[in-house]
Amino acid sequence: MEPIKHIKIKKGMKISELVGEMKNAGFGAEKIGKASEIVKKMFNDKKCTVFLGVAGAMVPAGMKEIITGLLDDVNVFVVTGANLTHDLIESLGEKHYHGNEFSDDESLNKQGIDRIYNVFMKNSVYEKLEDFFEKNFSEFLKCKTIKELLWKIGELVPEDGILKKCYEKKIPIFCPGIADSGIGLMMWGRIVEGRGKTSIDIFEDMKEIIDIAWTAEKRGIIYVGGGLPKNFIQQSLQFSKGADYGVQITTDRAESGGSSGAPLKEGISWGKMAKTGEFVDVFCDATIALPLILAGMK
Amino acid sequence: MEPIKHIKIKKGMKISELVGEMKNAGFGAEKIGKASEIVKKMFNDKKCTVFLGVAGAMVPAGMKEIITGLLDDVNVFVVTGANLTHDLIESLGEKHYHGNEFSDDESLNKQGIDRIYNVFMKNSVYEKLEDFFEKNFSEFLKCKTIKELLWKIGELVPEDGILKKCYEKKIPIFCPGIADSGIGLMMWGRIVEGRGKTSIDIFEDMKEIIDIAWTAEKRGIIYVGGGLPKNFIQQSLQFSKGADYGVQITTDRAESGGSSGAPLKEGISWGKMAKTGEFVDVFCDATIALPLILAGMK
Amino acid sequence: MEPIKHIKIKKGMKISELVGEMKNAGFGAEKIGKASEIVKKMFNDKKCTVFLGVAGAMVPAGMKEIITGLLDDVNVFVVTGANLTHDLIESLGEKHYHGNEFSDDESLNKQGIDRIYNVFMKNSVYEKLEDFFEKNFSEFLKCKTIKELLWKIGELVPEDGILKKCYEKKIPIFCPGIADSGIGLMMWGRIVEGRGKTSIDIFEDMKEIIDIAWTAEKRGIIYVGGGLPKNFIQQSLQFSKGADYGVQITTDRAESGGSSGAPLKEGISWGKMAKTGEFVDVFCDATIALPLILAGMK
Amino acid sequence: MEPIKHIKIKKGMKISELVGEMKNAGFGAEKIGKASEIVKKMFNDKKCTVFLGVAGAMVPAGMKEIITGLLDDVNVFVVTGANLTHDLIESLGEKHYHGNEFSDDESLNKQGIDRIYNVFMKNSVYEKLEDFFEKNFSEFLKCKTIKELLWKIGELVPEDGILKKCYEKKIPIFCPGIADSGIGLMMWGRIVEGRGKTSIDIFEDMKEIIDIAWTAEKRGIIYVGGGLPKNFIQQSLQFSKGADYGVQITTDRAESGGSSGAPLKEGISWGKMAKTGEFVDVFCDATIALPLILAGMK
Repeated sequence: MEPIKHIKIKKGMKISELVGEMKNAGFGAEKIGKASEIVKKMFNDKKCTVFLGVAGAMVPAGMKEIITGLLDDVNVFVVTGANLTHDLIESLGEKHYHGNEFSDDESLNKQGIDRIYNVFMKNSVYEKLEDFFEKNFSEFLKCKTIKELLWKIGELVPEDGILKKCYEKKIPIFCPGIADSGIGLMMWGRIVEGRGKTSIDIFEDMKEIIDIAWTAEKRGIIYVGGGLPKNFIQQSLQFSKGADYGVQITTDRAESGGSSGAPLKEGISWGKMAKTGEFVDVFCDATIALPLILAGMK
Repeated sequence: MEPIKHIKIKKGMKISELVGEMKNAGFGAEKIGKASEIVKKMFNDKKCTVFLGVAGAMVPAGMKEIITGLLDDVNVFVVTGANLTHDLIESLGEKHYHGNEFSDDESLNKQGIDRIYNVFMKNSVYEKLEDFFEKNFSEFLKCKTIKELLWKIGELVPEDGILKKCYEKKIPIFCPGIADSGIGLMMWGRIVEGRGKTSIDIFEDMKEIIDIAWTAEKRGIIYVGGGLPKNFIQQSLQFSKGADYGVQITTDRAESGGSSGAPLKEGISWGKMAKTGEFVDVFCDATIALPLILAGMK
Repeated sequence: MEPIKHIKIKKGMKISELVGEMKNAGFGAEKIGKASEIVKKMFNDKKCTVFLGVAGAMVPAGMKEIITGLLDDVNVFVVTGANLTHDLIESLGEKHYHGNEFSDDESLNKQGIDRIYNVFMKNSVYEKLEDFFEKNFSEFLKCKTIKELLWKIGELVPEDGILKKCYEKKIPIFCPGIADSGIGLMMWGRIVEGRGKTSIDIFEDMKEIIDIAWTAEKRGIIYVGGGLPKNFIQQSLQFSKGADYGVQITTDRAESGGSSGAPLKEGISWGKMAKTGEFVDVFCDATIALPLILAGMK
Repeated sequence: MEPIKHIKIKKGMKISELVGEMKNAGFGAEKIGKASEIVKKMFNDKKCTVFLGVAGAMVPAGMKEIITGLLDDVNVFVVTGANLTHDLIESLGEKHYHGNEFSDDESLNKQGIDRIYNVFMKNSVYEKLEDFFEKNFSEFLKCKTIKELLWKIGELVPEDGILKKCYEKKIPIFCPGIADSGIGLMMWGRIVEGRGKTSIDIFEDMKEIIDIAWTAEKRGIIYVGGGLPKNFIQQSLQFSKGADYGVQITTDRAESGGSSGAPLKEGISWGKMAKTGEFVDVFCDATIALPLILAGMK
């Protein structure tokens, strides 16, 4: 048995030092330390294909650069439509704002402000979204997969962000629930206006992600917030020998039985996780855990 | 101010009595009582269109009859692909089993058992799924929306369940994330075998649900577990005057900023919930709260 | 493996029927069913000494009758000072009220209202407390243990409640943290006024509870909300062969490492729980779980 | 409204830089940033008396140095008996060890290992505790308050730690639930052996902490994990104008109504928190949040 060592705070301490010390402590601190180590291993393992799944409003919460940074080392990206919509909103020049979770929502509504916990967004952002989709809809009509549509948006959007990076680096990006998002609404808006009809089949993107899982020599996974992105990667892993490395960050409970709160080890029973894999479940708000884990590697 | 009354347990007590007493107590008990009352109101309000969103593995956990019961009073149903897959598995004659959340997942994997918290499923269920999709794939190829596909599955599946009921009662059922499920995998399996290609556009089902929200005189919502089903209904409600009645059951946290854990009142800022609506957030495992709330009405 | 059975709601259904069906379902529902069964077993086992630990504001939330009901079958009661203070407040004729968790706390403060989540209490209740302690302080000065003091309060308080019942039925009641409560404040108030000095030794009550644990033939435990009451019983159980039956109701997390959120099985390592014991951890608001579990037995 | 800024990770980044950036982000990250700022303010405000409350097994989890570090700036310390016992165990030369939360507790019990989530402790540590109390019991018998007893233990224990620091720096340390701990058990062991009787009155320490709260010009509070330490400080604050600064770190839920999970603003209704105070509730495992918040100040 290895003794627990007590974390010592020093003046001017680097994050990498702290995360190193956390690994020698217990409870959640140890898990942050382990997670940082496992992410480093999967990034450095040349044989490993890394799948990143992101749910929860990470872009409104100031995690956009963290995610674009992760995309340098990630091979497959699965994400909610909401995150992509908020990314697009920012790449169109709009912003998110500091708010207060105890605000009066009626009053916010009158002011045209949408609340996401302690983050605010002006409802007027939808105007820029409308303009962008109005202008480029004919291009979007040509897309045959969700990935193609998202890359096309990334190509046409003026400013940097997650979508543009996925396009530029040709990162396979999957978003099976795209209809459930502002992007979906913008597409629907044009379609109901009679501007044309898309033909993006719902099952089309499955081929690519399952092929990637199937052919990868080794697999690493990073799940932020569970949800559809986690589950979509998990089901693809069933067509492989299971993930060799895994880090999950969530505040959901295992007891309610949903996929988001299930510890990674449950995936061993399904063959989604390899028996010999290195996994850690981090119970923490991702806006705290992600920066620590990533900065801890540098 | 109304005084809190203390709950009194009686021999042979009916659930409706207990839920009535809960409403006079505090904390979560009061919320169960209120939720039961609000669900009753939205079911009895002839002008009200009721939207039900269900995420989390409700079918494996023994909630299938609860959900089919709810479908008698619900006008629109949005659900995860996982729940529909587990429903289909049972309607093909397979079962879920009592398990243990402390099990050794490696050993379960060797025995061919998939674990969902404290529920087990034999991995061999996939054989019946394969057979069913193999046999009926040509029928599924004709479907043009996800709803049509799900109704068709409901039509062709031998035994009763959620899918069959949605088909028989022509309940609009939406599952934007269908690719993220065993049903998705079964469709993909046939497609990659070259048995044919579907053309179910990802944005197609949006029209119907938004139309329903738009034209409804009043709107009620019931969210079990958040996730994509909640968010998909919420975004449709933006094209209405907002929900007039709302009950949400979740164990997710508001603090991590995801849609699943956000209290319903946050939706007022977005215009998804009406300022004058009656809402309650129930923080409870849905397998405990749902039976109580529904039995409490009877 | 036993198949999961789906819960069926019937008109006029009794709680005992529902809880029986819950046991055949999964996730939290199954645990409610098991908890009801285990509590019934420990109450019916003549050899079993039952320890009840209660933390969290159960009295303000309308659980007073539930607790006094439990005391009919319980042999040892450990509780927070807060619950006893709120019980005393009610036994002096005051009440708790329905409130709202989204209230403006500044405005409540101006109105003299103290908030406990969605329950309100008038700050003026302290006047009756002052009068009661003023009047009876000389009696309280004679007490040599916390249990004696609490029994004396129970004897002298005019109306029924938890304290009176413990006195009348001579139930050993332990409250090691009594200084941390309104009762503590009332005693301190008299002492600093120079009205006399108590001599209630902090370690005195330990003898009795450890003796009870030591000499009991079998032991059952019911923990509501964790905290000091759980831990105080747990440490006494170290001087025994461990608990044979156990039910824990809490919404705290295991991951943060506190005693309140630790699953009962962790206690096996310490020898606080018997290896052969029957235990269940119920993750649920106690105001929902307790009435169900208890009514389910009847 | 201030725009959210996205956190940027840099190579060799200092914690103070990251925490500074966190403050410009949303959700929990922003709260870590605010907490660091508020703690800095209360430490730098010469008029401010700082109360620290610590519950949860912080010492086993490697947080001992963090706590002794905090004690340099803290004026009043309230803590659970468990933390002090684990501190004493380490100051007697024993250690805690890295373990695994998925361990077989029966097997651990056979090996004489006590588990605290993912931390292990040898059961044999109790021998050193026994020796220490056996040797020094006559000294302990002279103590008249819990604080005196704890200072005396700190004086006599050989190695550095929390108890020794409180003694050396004469920090008022309060532990109303001391009977609920290994230290309590050690005292009880000697008392039942007939080695003497303590006379430490349960209400005695209240005077000092309430006096401190009463006379302080300004008050700051730091709560780790809630529990009795939080509540004991809160009740003392009722005899003041309320806390001017406040940081709370907990993973408990508000919805279950316990004191541990209640947001600090609830205390405004009671007059425990000042209306004009600066507060933040950090929802995070304290082993992650505390090092960040404190290192962020340096």
